[in-house]
Amino acid sequence: MNERLQQQLAFLLEIDKLKNVYRQSYLSDKSRRENDAEHSWHLTMMAMILMEHADHPQLDILRVMKMLVVHDIVEIDAGDTFAYDDQGHTDKAEREQAAANRLFGLLPADQRDELMALWEEFEARSTPESQYAAAMDRLAPILLNYHTGGASWREHGITSEQVLKRNRHIADSSEGLWTFVQSLVEDAVNRGYLKR
Amino acid sequence: MNERLQQQLAFLLEIDKLKNVYRQSYLSDKSRRENDAEHSWHLTMMAMILMEHADHPQLDILRVMKMLVVHDIVEIDAGDTFAYDDQGHTDKAEREQAAANRLFGLLPADQRDELMALWEEFEARSTPESQYAAAMDRLAPILLNYHTGGASWREHGITSEQVLKRNRHIADSSEGLWTFVQSLVEDAVNRGYLKR
Repeated sequence: MNERLQQQLAFLLEIDKLKNVYRQSYLSDKSRRENDAEHSWHLTMMAMILMEHADHPQLDILRVMKMLVVHDIVEIDAGDTFAYDDQGHTDKAEREQAAANRLFGLLPADQRDELMALWEEFEARSTPESQYAAAMDRLAPILLNYHTGGASWREHGITSEQVLKRNRHIADSSEGLWTFVQSLVEDAVNRGYLKR
Repeated sequence: MNERLQQQLAFLLEIDKLKNVYRQSYLSDKSRRENDAEHSWHLTMMAMILMEHADHPQLDILRVMKMLVVHDIVEIDAGDTFAYDDQGHTDKAEREQAAANRLFGLLPADQRDELMALWEEFEARSTPESQYAAAMDRLAPILLNYHTGGASWREHGITSEQVLKRNRHIADSSEGLWTFVQSLVEDAVNRGYLKR
């Protein structure tokens, strides 16, 4: 086997571990928490289906999907940081950079650079594609939380203000989806899924 | 909320169930079987990384990735059919067509048609893109089986002949990957992971 294929397969085997990185969100049937790998899959499907709601007229959907496939891989080493864990966010960037260096570094240099660039673009949210990808990443747990009666919000005593503040950059990509999220949050408060 | 967004979200919520459809393959750490959603994510990453090994010079990688995101959704209703379950394969097509009609039918008509077409293309394996996508779908469980000491092969008493016969269409997309798989299978036999 040539060395290049060997490096590629070593990376692809190593990232199998993403299936064991668990998030705070529950599956819609509340049977268990979801993991990063299945979450990443769900986001790629959301990106395909909801693209018409992005305000930018010509998104490169391939780059969006690639970013979503890659975006959580660093959590294999760095762990999942709950969206409302302010303390966890203080050293998140540092932990994740080290993880990116190790994990993407398993690949041949050109592919390491490609995945690193995709991950950095996603994190920076400075392009229409990364803003849309980030909107999917934020919308997904809100939908799951709403449809489980606020399972994870209630567990952590989250308020509507926290949800609106943490997720407001959905509006950077889509005013329509942000309007929808605001109404969902209002409804979640009225139903007692979320504290006011 | 407009009706179109409502249909899209109903579909995106329904397919959350793919996270509870379990396959025969074990995760690389053997802790549990993998599910279809995380498997689909893994395939999209494999497709991104291994594309240079496809013999076709100009694959449309976006269509490959879309096919891989969509390809197992029918199993929400139809269940996973183990690759070596000949009996399960007799009515697989019928069960999956009914599932596709119901699940993709939750979407607005234009998106229903797009996903149906992607799924049909994947199943037919008549284009370079679907042949490459199918090669990823076959390669993934072989890698996991090999790296778990043949966990699922041994459970079912699978032979090397069965593996080579069932997966030979990897060669339709990539002679290089097929050569690699053949050597992996030979090695698996020598190590006692797989019956001769």
